[in-house]
Amino acid sequence: MAEKKEIEKYFKNLSNRERAIFEGAISMGALFHQFIGVPISKKNLELIKDAIESSIKLQPAIKDVKVKINEKKVEEMESKFNYTTLTEEMLDVKIISRVKDIEAVIRMKYIDKLKYPLIYVEKVRGVNNKI
Amino acid sequence: MAEKKEIEKYFKNLSNRERAIFEGAISMGALFHQFIGVPISKKNLELIKDAIESSIKLQPAIKDVKVKINEKKVEEMESKFNYTTLTEEMLDVKIISRVKDIEAVIRMKYIDKLKYPLIYVEKVRGVNNKI
Amino acid sequence: MAEKKEIEKYFKNLSNRERAIFEGAISMGALFHQFIGVPISKKNLELIKDAIESSIKLQPAIKDVKVKINEKKVEEMESKFNYTTLTEEMLDVKIISRVKDIEAVIRMKYIDKLKYPLIYVEKVRGVNNKI
Amino acid sequence: MAEKKEIEKYFKNLSNRERAIFEGAISMGALFHQFIGVPISKKNLELIKDAIESSIKLQPAIKDVKVKINEKKVEEMESKFNYTTLTEEMLDVKIISRVKDIEAVIRMKYIDKLKYPLIYVEKVRGVNNKI
Repeated sequence: MAEKKEIEKYFKNLSNRERAIFEGAISMGALFHQFIGVPISKKNLELIKDAIESSIKLQPAIKDVKVKINEKKVEEMESKFNYTTLTEEMLDVKIISRVKDIEAVIRMKYIDKLKYPLIYVEKVRGVNNKI
Repeated sequence: MAEKKEIEKYFKNLSNRERAIFEGAISMGALFHQFIGVPISKKNLELIKDAIESSIKLQPAIKDVKVKINEKKVEEMESKFNYTTLTEEMLDVKIISRVKDIEAVIRMKYIDKLKYPLIYVEKVRGVNNKI
Repeated sequence: MAEKKEIEKYFKNLSNRERAIFEGAISMGALFHQFIGVPISKKNLELIKDAIESSIKLQPAIKDVKVKINEKKVEEMESKFNYTTLTEEMLDVKIISRVKDIEAVIRMKYIDKLKYPLIYVEKVRGVNNKI
Repeated sequence: MAEKKEIEKYFKNLSNRERAIFEGAISMGALFHQFIGVPISKKNLELIKDAIESSIKLQPAIKDVKVKINEKKVEEMESKFNYTTLTEEMLDVKIISRVKDIEAVIRMKYIDKLKYPLIYVEKVRGVNNKI
């Protein structure tokens, strides 16, 4: 497809490894800022998790997304109205991005000591199997 | 519950009709600004719709939420990467809020002529059945 | 303007008082779900406050918006990276909506005891002066 | 600071170049999904631009952020109510991230032909001057 070729021009300055890291990182920033604030409770936790995963999986180079929402923290935060809103403290996320034969695992986890949802590259690995 | 009583004090200045309109309107503003921007395609359209409905239904006084996402507009907008992001033009929403024996139907629909997602009160009705 | 007339048809079922409440409530829901998650620190707190106010003031029937962001809470929440993200606990907001000679003051304040950002109608008043 | 050291452990698997790309990419994903949907018009365009820049500049390793909001597109999209909401088509953004002596310029621009806000690495450069 002509368009795909045109896009490739924009990425000539990156190795496959760098591009896998790049695409996964964009999607992690996106996930966080799109879904923080969603009304959530134990009732719809599973559905919200599935929706987040399905949505981020659509983005370029994303092979898989694993979202964990901490049920205990959701419960603790539930207001007198029996729900709360999704916050960074509740989330643990892995995004697997792939560019040609390189896969990157991008991770977000909340680190209590830092009061911070740290985003880092958990692993970069070669994959033999063709996509 | 003591808390529920305390909250009621804040709403003494509204009739049931006014409060039903009020709660439904808050939720409509919330829905719109929380979910605009979510990556979407024909593949996850149904799941996103379910997630939005489940999430807004958690809010106070909301009895039901009906979201329609215009599949044709999603398709038209799909980029060369086979997805797009949720926009106001794709949404048609009804939120039914209820306060005691009064139900309000709040509607959002995109009006092409105005280039605007109009939000209005479609109906307010009495309901006999107890909740 | 023909369009304005057409819009009025959608609001024939509401009194001026109800419509003022309605429009203010939509904007409060919008404000909350649009701006929760914004990176913030003492440095840009004033600018974020101004941006929120200017943006919500654009919406229909909104006459004024007063946002307070609790600086102490921002400071407490600042991570080791010297910033945090805007949360409901930090916000105290008044939105003044006006329809003809009726003005509604919609308020959001966080109530610690309820762990909840309560949104309610603080006041509805008649105004003599023409707009 | 002990915490800073602890964080460094998470990034031992990345070169400075990779980490600069990584941090800039996260912030670009964040920017996009946080601010899409903000009510905007010619009146508050400059303020919204400043708020976005100030907010993203707080994130780790971000040295500078340049946001352009296309005034012509804002005008074209303004509804009969004289405002619109911020969309991807209106945005052109540069984020400059820096890790030690390496600077990455991450760019987002909307490509009409692809109906897509392409995010790519415009440049990576060495910088001699100490931070």
